[in-house]
This record gives sequence, structure tokens and C-alpha cells, in this order.
Amino acid sequence: MASARNLRELGLAQAARLIAAGDITSEALVTACLERVAAREPQVQAWSFIDPELALRQARECDASPNRGLLHGVPIAVKDVLDTYDMPTEMGSPIYAGARPMLDAACVALARTAGAVIMGKTVTCEFAGMAPGATTNPHDPTRTPGGSSSGSGAAVADFMAPLAFGTQTGGSVLRPAAFCGVIGYKPTFGMFNRAGMKFAAESIDTIGLIARELEDMALVTAALTGSAFVAPSLPARPLRVGLCRTYLWPKAEPSARAALERAAAAARSAGADVREFELPAQFSRLTQTREIFNNVERARSLAFEWAHHREKISPALSRSVELGLATPDAEYRDAMRFAEACRIEADAIFCDFDMLLCPSANGEAPVGLHYAGDPSFQGLWTLLHVPTLSLPAGKGESAMPVGVQLIAPRYADKALLDAAYWLITQAGVTATMA
Amino acid sequence: MASARNLRELGLAQAARLIAAGDITSEALVTACLERVAAREPQVQAWSFIDPELALRQARECDASPNRGLLHGVPIAVKDVLDTYDMPTEMGSPIYAGARPMLDAACVALARTAGAVIMGKTVTCEFAGMAPGATTNPHDPTRTPGGSSSGSGAAVADFMAPLAFGTQTGGSVLRPAAFCGVIGYKPTFGMFNRAGMKFAAESIDTIGLIARELEDMALVTAALTGSAFVAPSLPARPLRVGLCRTYLWPKAEPSARAALERAAAAARSAGADVREFELPAQFSRLTQTREIFNNVERARSLAFEWAHHREKISPALSRSVELGLATPDAEYRDAMRFAEACRIEADAIFCDFDMLLCPSANGEAPVGLHYAGDPSFQGLWTLLHVPTLSLPAGKGESAMPVGVQLIAPRYADKALLDAAYWLITQAGVTATMA
Repeated sequence: MASARNLRELGLAQAARLIAAGDITSEALVTACLERVAAREPQVQAWSFIDPELALRQARECDASPNRGLLHGVPIAVKDVLDTYDMPTEMGSPIYAGARPMLDAACVALARTAGAVIMGKTVTCEFAGMAPGATTNPHDPTRTPGGSSSGSGAAVADFMAPLAFGTQTGGSVLRPAAFCGVIGYKPTFGMFNRAGMKFAAESIDTIGLIARELEDMALVTAALTGSAFVAPSLPARPLRVGLCRTYLWPKAEPSARAALERAAAAARSAGADVREFELPAQFSRLTQTREIFNNVERARSLAFEWAHHREKISPALSRSVELGLATPDAEYRDAMRFAEACRIEADAIFCDFDMLLCPSANGEAPVGLHYAGDPSFQGLWTLLHVPTLSLPAGKGESAMPVGVQLIAPRYADKALLDAAYWLITQAGVTATMA
Repeated sequence: MASARNLRELGLAQAARLIAAGDITSEALVTACLERVAAREPQVQAWSFIDPELALRQARECDASPNRGLLHGVPIAVKDVLDTYDMPTEMGSPIYAGARPMLDAACVALARTAGAVIMGKTVTCEFAGMAPGATTNPHDPTRTPGGSSSGSGAAVADFMAPLAFGTQTGGSVLRPAAFCGVIGYKPTFGMFNRAGMKFAAESIDTIGLIARELEDMALVTAALTGSAFVAPSLPARPLRVGLCRTYLWPKAEPSARAALERAAAAARSAGADVREFELPAQFSRLTQTREIFNNVERARSLAFEWAHHREKISPALSRSVELGLATPDAEYRDAMRFAEACRIEADAIFCDFDMLLCPSANGEAPVGLHYAGDPSFQGLWTLLHVPTLSLPAGKGESAMPVGVQLIAPRYADKALLDAAYWLITQAGVTATMA
């Protein structure tokens, strides 16, 4: 019989295989996760809503029914900007305290259709923005877990759930994954349907995944896109890796720089063709351009809340809305055109490279809970709509996790996962590398 | 004192000017529109929800308050796939009978912030798809008004409201506008924020406007994008017009062909440089490609309804969902890539032309209420994300309205409205042209 610890440390795909084989039950798995929540939630505060009975009821229903699909019986945590018909969706905002949507977000409904247990809702920064909730970093409670998918990162890293949905408008999936020492995956823009997601900036909002095991990304992708599960596999040819420090390099702290060099050296040693790659000069405008999208589109998508509940919106978000309202529409259209042009140019980069290797974030998770970290290193890629993945790549100066970021061209999500698989299994890019 | 008829026939911008000047009240204007509704709704059936007292209360509040903005006191009708906090949002589906969203869609909230009176909700085909409601064409009750923004087209054409919001995934704004003899405008993809819109296919869903007066499109654009109102004006140079029959020309009925030739001849006579333009050969795949988007994304965005309320989904929509579920994800990704490539190629067309002139629809509104018409002539442009406008251009063989469609490059919405302004005022392209 598997121990609770063994159960809660299972990856999602591995757990699904064991349930399908009858080796473990969904109830035992969910119970093990709930025990971890009970033990650690007072410190980690990853959940905005969790009802053990509701989670267990779903698990028992799975155990009593024939296999429903790829995710039969496995628990998934859901960032609280994604609607759930049976749990509140509060979006990190007092405006939505206790709010109950009529239906599930598409990704939640598709996961349930594939058999998943929706375990609970994870803490989000206010409207997936910059104002954090109470979640702490599982590796050090004095530090931020990152955001805005704060609870998703912390819950997965702390073995409360094997996988969580997040959303990324700047760096809201990859940064908490990097800060918490797990894997974050932002698919190509548009690949996971966004119905039932509260928009931050709809031109760039992307639903992503946080998990401890790479294959789990492929499994959930299969469930959400109606595809067969194809596990990540080794690329047929040696990888051509662009070592891309980006124009943000001056922001990279020693921990981030060391992690990038470590991963690049490991890739080179394992046979990859690693060459320095410098982004086109005009890409340095991407950070500022993303801010325009973020402010203008937030101001528009929050028009109702701004009109009716302005006093309940945080100063940080109010500032973003005000900036958005003050931005001339012509500037926004120019930003749209510029982003389009850069996306096309980004496609061309991948004639020479299979993937780019970049810092995941500025460095380790900062001390303090009032700032979820700088989204710059993640945000430029979000604007480009390319798929990105953050892999743990050892520890930093304070023994906190540090990640490296992999980038592939739009729609080449499978190639991205395969490249990551190679980096983990062949080059040894892992949380414990030194 | 203006007569009820004069009032209800006012355009939105003209009405806003008269209210701002104190020449008419919002209450008088809304009353005139409501009287028209009372007289004609039994035949036209444009509204899924209208509460005269609620509309009048908003109007009186406007009359009692200082001018709130560009739309102060003017009534707007809202397609029933856009959320309203004070009215049901039923989406043409029994699943949502009586449903009350918690908040307004962004476009509704922004319109209210600018002072608009939200007059009521207009009938939509089921989830903005192909299964029509009861609305009839105001010009002939035996004919469809088009869809899926059926009630929006009919209400505006029948003088029940000066302007209505619609949404277009295939041809759902421009086709009802053409069939009902009014102007339909689909902005560049993404220009009107979609928060609070029920997604059909999120990669192409676009919020648009139906009105009788061209300047009203510019006024609402200004309100929704936080810009100053700039009325359409004459282009500085003679227009270079691409007469574009498209690969769909065999579908064009004599009425549509005659309208296109009429408009082209009028433009030429008025001094435009009108040349034939043939779309790149591979664009002929756009219709089929749009179907892939439509089916796959609908299947995903309706995952909750499909799981919980399948028996309440029409056979037509069920077929679309089933096709979507059966489409391999690789085919969908290829469709994404192809659409991206065609969008870039479409940008290049407009090095040689200021606008393209095309059929708006196959011809006049078909007889019968069970089929809202073929979306092909509108849908290829929706997929390309370009701004499009349908202008009335005389009558067809059955004395029903027929439109012509204008196309401009992405983000050049102002140039599109200016070109339309030239066509109307200088070339005489109007509902009564012969």
C-alpha cells in the first residue's frame, strides 16, 4: 500500500496510470493531498477555497465509475480567476467575495470531462494582477511565491496537488513556478480555450499549467485539446539552442545568471549546439509595449468594476486602469501593430534555433509578501504569443529555487516539451543540479 | 417639438447632439423608440428582453444629471450574448433561460459610462450560431433578418433603436445589416474589448455595431476606446478601390452582383481608381479554415453546456460541436498557422489599394425563418481580422435591401469609415441607389 507521502508526491500522469490500473484509488490520492493541505495550509495559504468533502465526493464518484478519460481520478487545482460552477470564484477581489458563477470555465469543464477531480481554487493576485494574496513560498514563508498564480505555484510545490491551472498575462504562470521550484508551462497563445476566464488583457492572457513533472503538461494538453496523450520524447537531432540573455540581462541577479550558465553548459556537454543569440534590437520595446496592452485592456475589461466598485480596487490596479484610460487609442493600435510585427520576426528566429534558453526571472523569490516579483523576463514572451516553459535549474545564493526559461516558436508546443525532456533527462537540468 | 417619428428616425450621434444641446430629452427619445417597439414588436420580434420602465428610468436619470459623456441619453440595443447586470442574458439558448449575470460586458459598461441608455437585449441565434430565434425581417416578415445578430439588425432597421451591439464570428453583424438594409461594422479584431461576451470562437469573435448612420460607428468607437469623437471625413486623395469578387463569386446571386457593379460604377464615376483585384489563390481555403476555428473553438468553449445540458443544444450546434471534437488538434494548429500567414499577406494587399469592395452577402434575405443565411462572404474577412463594413446599395430583384462590403487593412478602421463616407456622400452609394 502506498504511503500518503508517496501518493502526494506522484505526478499527475503517473497517478492517472496507477488509478487506471487499479493500483491506487482516486480517494486515497485526494485524501493524501488533503492531508497535506490540512498540515501545511496555515503556513502556505495557497487556497482561496477548498472543501475536503466536495473534493472527496468527486474522487469517490470516479472510483465508482468506469474510466472517464485521460485525467480519471486525478486532482487539479484551479486558479481563482477561472470559473467553477460548484465553488466560488472570487478573483482575489473583495468585489467578488462569495461569487458563484453559473458554469465552469472551458478548461475546467474539459478537465472534468476527462475525469479530473477539481480539488479547489488557488489564491490569485487581485484579478490576476500585481496585488498579492496571503500565500507564502513553501521553501521560505518570508518570501513571495510569485504571482499572480501564487496559490497554484505554492500548492503544487508543496505537494498539495500534482498540477494546477494558472493564467499568464505577464509572467503569472512561469514566475511562481520558478520561485517555487516547479515547472511552469505557458502554451502558444490561444491553445487552451479561455471561455470562463476573467480577462486581464485579452490579447495576451494565456491559460497555463504548473506541475512537478514534465509529462503532466502533455497529458493535460491532450485532455484540453481532445488529443491522444503523447509523452515527451527525445528530439531526433541534437538541439540547436540559442542562449538568449535578452535586453533585460542587467536585471538578472547572480542567481539567475548562474542558473542560465549552468543550464547552457549542461546542454553543451550533453551534445546540444549552444550559441549566443541576441534578440533584434527593436524587441527591447516589448516590455513597454506589453505594459500598454496590460493597462489599456485592463481598463476596458474592468469597466463595470471601475464604474460600480472603484473603492474596492487596490491602489496598484487603480493606477493601471488610470494609465490605461489615459492611453490614446492610437498608441494602443500602434502597440498592436508592433506586437504583430515582432511575432512574425520571432517566427524567423527559429529557422536557426530549435529553442531559446533564457532566464526565467530576475533571480530567487524576493523576501516579503507584498510584491510578487518582476514580470519582465516572462512578459516579453507572453506578448510574442510563443510557448514557454520554466524548468528548475538548481538553487540560488539563498538556497531558493531558480529556473531557466525555454522558448519555442508559436504552435510548436510539442517541440518545446521534447526539448525540455531532453534538457532534464540528457543534460541533467533539474532542481538539484549544481 | 419633434414628432415621435422624427425622434425614432434620428441617428445616434445626431440624437446625442440634440440631447447635449437641450433640444430633446433622453426620455422623449427613448419613449419614441419604445412606442415603435410596442407597435411593431409583435411582428418583428427583435427583442429577447425589453422592460420599458427600466429603459425609461435610465433615460430620466440622464435627463436629471449633467452630461456624462459621448453617449449621454442615447439608447443602445444589446445582442443577448453580451452580459448585462440588470437584464437577463439568455444567449438564445434554453440553458440560460432567465440567467442574470453579475456584471455588464465591457462594451456595455463602457457605453453606460459614456452615458448610454441600455434599451434591452436583442434576439440572437443560439450562442451566436446558426439556429435562429423568432425575429423577422422588417422589410418582409416572411424573410429572415439574417443572423446571428438577428434582433440587432431588425431593431435598428425598424427604428426601434438607433444602434445595436452585435457580434460576428462568421457574418453575424454584416449579414443582418445587409439583409435589413442598414450599416454593419465589424472593427479590426480586438478593438472592442470582449470581456463579458459569450465566446463562440474566441480567435475570431468580434464585437461590432449595427446602425443607420455612418457617423454613429465613429461615435461608439470613440466611447468604447476612450477617444475623442472624430466624424468620418473625406479622404485626402482619390480612393484606390480593389473590386474584389472573391472566390465565392459563384455563390453571388444576381442581386448581389448588380449591387456590386452599381457601387463600383458609382465609385468610378465619382473619381475613384477602381481596378479588379483577385485574391491570392490560397485564400480560397479561408472558408474551410474558418469552419475549423468555428467548430473546434465552439466545442471547447461550450464544454460545460455539452457536459451538463446536451439535450438543450440544437441539432445544428450539436453537429458543430461534434465536428469540433472530432477535429485533430494538429489540424486546428495548422489552421491557426494558415490564418496567420493569410493575415500577413492581406496586409500587403493594401499597398496597392485603400479598400476592397466586395459583396456583403449572397443576395437578398432568403424567404423563411429557419435559416439565417450563408456566412461565407462575411466570414473570410472575419478570419483575416480586418475591419469590414456593409453599406446599403440599393434593392434586389424582390425589392429587398442588398449591401456591398468594404474592407480595409487591420487597425485602419478610421480609413475604412472615411472610405465609406466618401462612397455615401460623393459616389451616392445608398439604400435608394438604382
